[in-house]
Amino acid sequence: MRGSSDVYRQAGVDIDSGNSAVDLMRAAVRSTHGPQVLTGPGLFGGAFALNADTVLVASTDSVGTKLRVAARLGRHRGIGVDLVNHCVNDILTLGARPLFFLDYFATSSLDPAVASEVVSGLAAACREAGCALLGGETAELPGMYVPGEYDVAGFIVGSVDRGSLLDGTRVRAGDALLALRSSGLHTNGFSLVNRILEGGTGSGPVTEETLLAHDTQLGGALADVLLEPHRSYLNAVSPLLEEGLVRALAHITGGGLIENLPRALPQGLSARVDTTTWTPQPVFDWIARMGGVSPAEMYRVFNMGVGLVLVVPVEAEEDVLARLPEAWRLGEVVQGGEGVELDAGV
Amino acid sequence: MRGSSDVYRQAGVDIDSGNSAVDLMRAAVRSTHGPQVLTGPGLFGGAFALNADTVLVASTDSVGTKLRVAARLGRHRGIGVDLVNHCVNDILTLGARPLFFLDYFATSSLDPAVASEVVSGLAAACREAGCALLGGETAELPGMYVPGEYDVAGFIVGSVDRGSLLDGTRVRAGDALLALRSSGLHTNGFSLVNRILEGGTGSGPVTEETLLAHDTQLGGALADVLLEPHRSYLNAVSPLLEEGLVRALAHITGGGLIENLPRALPQGLSARVDTTTWTPQPVFDWIARMGGVSPAEMYRVFNMGVGLVLVVPVEAEEDVLARLPEAWRLGEVVQGGEGVELDAGV
Repeated sequence: MRGSSDVYRQAGVDIDSGNSAVDLMRAAVRSTHGPQVLTGPGLFGGAFALNADTVLVASTDSVGTKLRVAARLGRHRGIGVDLVNHCVNDILTLGARPLFFLDYFATSSLDPAVASEVVSGLAAACREAGCALLGGETAELPGMYVPGEYDVAGFIVGSVDRGSLLDGTRVRAGDALLALRSSGLHTNGFSLVNRILEGGTGSGPVTEETLLAHDTQLGGALADVLLEPHRSYLNAVSPLLEEGLVRALAHITGGGLIENLPRALPQGLSARVDTTTWTPQPVFDWIARMGGVSPAEMYRVFNMGVGLVLVVPVEAEEDVLARLPEAWRLGEVVQGGEGVELDAGV
Repeated sequence: MRGSSDVYRQAGVDIDSGNSAVDLMRAAVRSTHGPQVLTGPGLFGGAFALNADTVLVASTDSVGTKLRVAARLGRHRGIGVDLVNHCVNDILTLGARPLFFLDYFATSSLDPAVASEVVSGLAAACREAGCALLGGETAELPGMYVPGEYDVAGFIVGSVDRGSLLDGTRVRAGDALLALRSSGLHTNGFSLVNRILEGGTGSGPVTEETLLAHDTQLGGALADVLLEPHRSYLNAVSPLLEEGLVRALAHITGGGLIENLPRALPQGLSARVDTTTWTPQPVFDWIARMGGVSPAEMYRVFNMGVGLVLVVPVEAEEDVLARLPEAWRLGEVVQGGEGVELDAGV
């Protein structure tokens, strides 16, 4: 499955070069780690033991080039929601509840209305997550950003009792993989989406009119479908974590199921996923068609309708499915192998 | 002193518009604060009470357009040092020691060599500060950054015993203001520097040759002087904090003494600063001359040689000066007034 990623590379993101940069940095990063750091690289967040009982979990992320779609349409509030929820989900995978959040907003020339719309979205999502928006930085950096563009990064800190930290080591062969639906693209794959919108995949630029028109097949306007905010799984999953029903969680972000499911598994185990157990939202079909993207690559770039995967022991499966009526079994953990094996046909 | 900022605005940074955006955001931010948040806006970091004894202090910042000078010269390691030390100093002003740091590195097209040079600088400064580089994100965002440019934001979390939190309320009229020297421009004022380097202030572009040539007046090559990393004050100041000799600290970043000293003072008190007590490094003269910048504006944009200001009770002044031989008294806290009053002549 880890085949070529040509279409995505043409859109400007080189996953392999990204991975090699990450490798180059790891030795430097490790040189700063003492016994208080409980996690290695590759997880969705870092865990820091504050004392014998409490572990702090932190993560940073951005919304990526979804921002460019938001900027084109002048809708910035959802970007704030996206950013917080992405970070909330990331630390949730280690079992942590959020404590506080900080944002870094940067642009070449500050538009106060845009910045405050983003921050109002950040604040709304923070309230929803019971998380303090503790601070932030607004930077005006002439000449660094393309005119009209901005970037916003989020930093989150949460905590978890030391005994409840999820670090992948609890997972066993035979565990069930249960899925929760994404609310759409979340915040990944937008470099490819932007290339389609700009006409770079050969089907001509997508007009404002097309973006805003109701599309029966998509179940709404393309603009709304693309900008649908990243969903938070905190409230759905927290009660299950408290009862110890979950062995690991994978947040399906950039790299899709293929790259993210393995981050929740220990060495020596892999995942088998049956893609016939669900139907991705119609927008993924639209992207594949408009972008000329193969099914294999779609699964490596997009979440394909799966936002979060819960790893649960088979004896808890029925209980979890009863309490999360929208969840379904999409596969299982298997001994040996590597990464994720999708059923034939993808 | 809070007069016009015209030269700086021409360079692309509008301090007043920045301030109004900040005002617009504050209500949203406050709506997320519960009793665990111990700080209001305006301090150098946010304080979050983890429990009865421990307060977490967090801050985020970036290196700003110093990056553009580094990129032009292909020297990226110092940028990592700058970023960590800036953040370390910010939370130090609340009395906190760093626990961990995360970085967000973003660019339109990733150059792994550049990214890993930055991260090696981050790691070196983290080791120096006894701080774990706990995580980070490397984002490739086509179309958002000007080609060849990148941005890197830092996020730091430290801790302080609740009884030792510095929040400005300890400061009294009559307290001495002691200064520690900056190592140069640190990370502020570079939008104006870049405008000079590009020839935008009328003196013609500064060539690579001029940047790299030894300049007797500057005491080195302009490139080295401009890129000198932001100094950390952690090790100099920590022992004094532990003994309770310091009532407040101001980190002199963007906005210079004029904007940053008041952040360390409670309402109703102001600062009187005698600028004849020290001589700024020659590079500040060079900037004022090449950029046609008035002395008043220089003090509003640059640190002018002062990197950190300690507010100490007069009875501790002699002790602190004896233990920090490089420190000097640059002024005092006075009743009433507003902000910072510089001696006549500036």
